[in-house]
Amino acid sequence: MLDNRPLSVLNRNIGNHVIVELRYGKEYRGILDGYDPHLNLVMSDVKEFIDGEQTRTMSKALVRGDNVIYVSP
Amino acid sequence: MLDNRPLSVLNRNIGNHVIVELRYGKEYRGILDGYDPHLNLVMSDVKEFIDGEQTRTMSKALVRGDNVIYVSP
Amino acid sequence: MLDNRPLSVLNRNIGNHVIVELRYGKEYRGILDGYDPHLNLVMSDVKEFIDGEQTRTMSKALVRGDNVIYVSP
Amino acid sequence: MLDNRPLSVLNRNIGNHVIVELRYGKEYRGILDGYDPHLNLVMSDVKEFIDGEQTRTMSKALVRGDNVIYVSP
Amino acid sequence: MLDNRPLSVLNRNIGNHVIVELRYGKEYRGILDGYDPHLNLVMSDVKEFIDGEQTRTMSKALVRGDNVIYVSP
Amino acid sequence: MLDNRPLSVLNRNIGNHVIVELRYGKEYRGILDGYDPHLNLVMSDVKEFIDGEQTRTMSKALVRGDNVIYVSP
Amino acid sequence: MLDNRPLSVLNRNIGNHVIVELRYGKEYRGILDGYDPHLNLVMSDVKEFIDGEQTRTMSKALVRGDNVIYVSP
Repeated sequence: MLDNRPLSVLNRNIGNHVIVELRYGKEYRGILDGYDPHLNLVMSDVKEFIDGEQTRTMSKALVRGDNVIYVSP
Repeated sequence: MLDNRPLSVLNRNIGNHVIVELRYGKEYRGILDGYDPHLNLVMSDVKEFIDGEQTRTMSKALVRGDNVIYVSP
Repeated sequence: MLDNRPLSVLNRNIGNHVIVELRYGKEYRGILDGYDPHLNLVMSDVKEFIDGEQTRTMSKALVRGDNVIYVSP
Repeated sequence: MLDNRPLSVLNRNIGNHVIVELRYGKEYRGILDGYDPHLNLVMSDVKEFIDGEQTRTMSKALVRGDNVIYVSP
Repeated sequence: MLDNRPLSVLNRNIGNHVIVELRYGKEYRGILDGYDPHLNLVMSDVKEFIDGEQTRTMSKALVRGDNVIYVSP
Repeated sequence: MLDNRPLSVLNRNIGNHVIVELRYGKEYRGILDGYDPHLNLVMSDVKEFIDGEQTRTMSKALVRGDNVIYVSP
Repeated sequence: MLDNRPLSVLNRNIGNHVIVELRYGKEYRGILDGYDPHLNLVMSDVKEFIDGEQTRTMSKALVRGDNVIYVSP
């Protein structure tokens, strides 16, 4: 049976495209490269959106887990 | 006798439809797939509501426990 | 002599009606079914009030302890 | 010599009238029945004041320590 | 050589007059009676100031460390 | 295979130029000299931007991890 | 090779002049006397600035680490 605990779901999605919504109306879309138990996330080919408008692209970003609202694979 | 501690109640509701209310006027409705002791939740077939209006659907989402106000099975 | 530490008081009130006041002007009234040391609370037959107006009823709710201001039996 | 560490001062005041000021302009006045190391407080014969106006009385309340600004015996 | 770690400085100032500035524009002035590692402080002969105006006197107060901005001996 | 956990990514970028976005519209750009598991960061040749405008330069700065939104190498 | 972890950088700057920026537009400038792993800082000959205006001088201050945005030697 599939392990659906939060960190297992992150683990299964390494290499996949994810949407990461943060507080402050910020959203990061890109490939999930890594994570840790605090939900700190390493992403690549990242597009930042603020209040729905694209504001920045980054080849790599470490997003702090504290501000995460959800991660959607 | 039924175990009514918070994590046991989450555990009994795996596979069931739940309403998750977060800070910031956000609400997520969907199937509870998994959880961890921080109340991080994995959900599927998720509908997001902001201030009562449906704003997004997601096939899967990991919702960070920090922002949870309540989970209602 | 009666044990009046916080968790003991919660424990004695399992099965009783309680008022739970949260931040954000939210209040939950219902039966206390369970709790954990973080003051996460499981309640049944819950009425939600926002700024004093009843806004929702839930047969069951797990209320996250972080947002609790007080619990009154 | 008197032990003046915070928890010892709470312990010496069990059974005494205390003023508990919280964030959000809230104040609780009543008898201190119990406490724990997180400064969660159990009180009885409690009067709630918001911005200086009495708003509620409760025979018993468990006040979460997180929101405490000060406790004054 | 003098030990200037934070808790040692608090310890050396037991019995001395201190100014404790908190968030929310609050300031407490009085004698430092005790403390713990969370910077919870026990004070006596306390004057409360809000936005620079004296608002209350307390013979004793336990001030929660979470809200402290600085303590000045 | 490359280790893409958050702290490993920081470690690989020691000596590189990074962009550190914080809450409060603050951004720090400079060389990453060091870090710890709380994401506290030591930087050199730092330029501070507030809401996109350069406001300060510092030869060295220890930036507290709590306020970090992301670090981009 | 120089140890550039955050606490080591603080340690090397004991006795030096530092700028400590806090939340709430507050800044403290003075000599760093001591610190602990929470980034609580002991300073002497301290000048407080609020929104860039000098507002207070203190011969000694223990600044709580929680509110620190950065420390710049």
